[in-house]
Amino acid sequence: MNIGILGSGMVGQTLGRKLVEQGHAVMIGTREPSKLQDWLSSVNNQAQVGSYAAAAQHGAVVINATAGTASLQALELAGADNLNGKILIDIANPLDFSNGMPPTLAIVNTDSLGEQIQRAYPHTRVVKTLNTLNAELMVNPQQLANGDHSIFISGDDSAAKQQVIVWLSEWFGWQAEHIIDLGDISTARGTEMLLPIWVRLWGALGTPAFNFKIVR
Amino acid sequence: MNIGILGSGMVGQTLGRKLVEQGHAVMIGTREPSKLQDWLSSVNNQAQVGSYAAAAQHGAVVINATAGTASLQALELAGADNLNGKILIDIANPLDFSNGMPPTLAIVNTDSLGEQIQRAYPHTRVVKTLNTLNAELMVNPQQLANGDHSIFISGDDSAAKQQVIVWLSEWFGWQAEHIIDLGDISTARGTEMLLPIWVRLWGALGTPAFNFKIVR
Repeated sequence: MNIGILGSGMVGQTLGRKLVEQGHAVMIGTREPSKLQDWLSSVNNQAQVGSYAAAAQHGAVVINATAGTASLQALELAGADNLNGKILIDIANPLDFSNGMPPTLAIVNTDSLGEQIQRAYPHTRVVKTLNTLNAELMVNPQQLANGDHSIFISGDDSAAKQQVIVWLSEWFGWQAEHIIDLGDISTARGTEMLLPIWVRLWGALGTPAFNFKIVR
Repeated sequence: MNIGILGSGMVGQTLGRKLVEQGHAVMIGTREPSKLQDWLSSVNNQAQVGSYAAAAQHGAVVINATAGTASLQALELAGADNLNGKILIDIANPLDFSNGMPPTLAIVNTDSLGEQIQRAYPHTRVVKTLNTLNAELMVNPQQLANGDHSIFISGDDSAAKQQVIVWLSEWFGWQAEHIIDLGDISTARGTEMLLPIWVRLWGALGTPAFNFKIVR
């Protein structure tokens, strides 16, 4: 299917490569297409690179993989007309590095980036997921403990969440039993607020190859 | 050993009961001793109840199990003289219910309750732990998945953290391999910020009998 990815960083590139491998028609949207020449070569030019607006228009589904503090600006450039009626999978975290390491959250506690995006684009169905683990594990969950770990999903539209759960299985091999539906988009506060401990665990464990599992 | 517990809520009562069962000399500190008559009966009066100051003075180690938004006030009543030189195990979370459910955090992102307590009591060795799971599981980790799930520990004093890891094993059966040392007390930001998703998971799963496991 046609998939638009906003953001040309490691997350966008990792997701894009995996989706190209799965045979999807991927367009990555970026303000600096030249940064993606090496990536395009690495996927044998089996993908496209364009503006945020072009990528959003291209996608039957759009993935927000921009830096969280730049997401609203990127989505404005993408354009509401190119997002209306579509599912937007929001993977971004509002990490603020302006005060050095470790980062803090630019939006926190009484609001979340997921909610801000949903409020700004009421005709787009925002589904927050995959924002709580390393990009390699997002697309290869089986690489860790045979996939026996958890991700979360937040969104106001139940049908959109069910569709994303199907895609997460088809695209990356996530089993439905490992995807926990937390509820409406305000539950994105909880998953975005996992980032501070995620960053500290990265430091304590010395590797980003870990994930949360909810044991019950 | 002599253990002082500040706070007479469910967490304080659950920890107190378990520690009495282990043969420790427990005193619970509270502003309302009358609230603990039933609890005292339930432990066959094998414990004491007193003021915050009396419980802190009693303890060779002191456990803060007060409501997080009242912790600094309770510690002030406990008195620095009764806390100096001791390990203070901080289990509290600064949950703010004043705007209804779900709670938000009264201290968050650029600070934490653990840090505020450490700053206020520089001669006390604050160790934050156990604040990320249900009280029953704190004291009975084996009840869930044979104990195969994680807790975290934060503190500026490495020796104090090592001592607390030993106590967590002796008192409650926590295996050291399941206790992750995140680093200094500022890492308490990360564990306190787990509470928003914890509350949402409680709602989504319909039970508080779950915990995080860090899969690596």
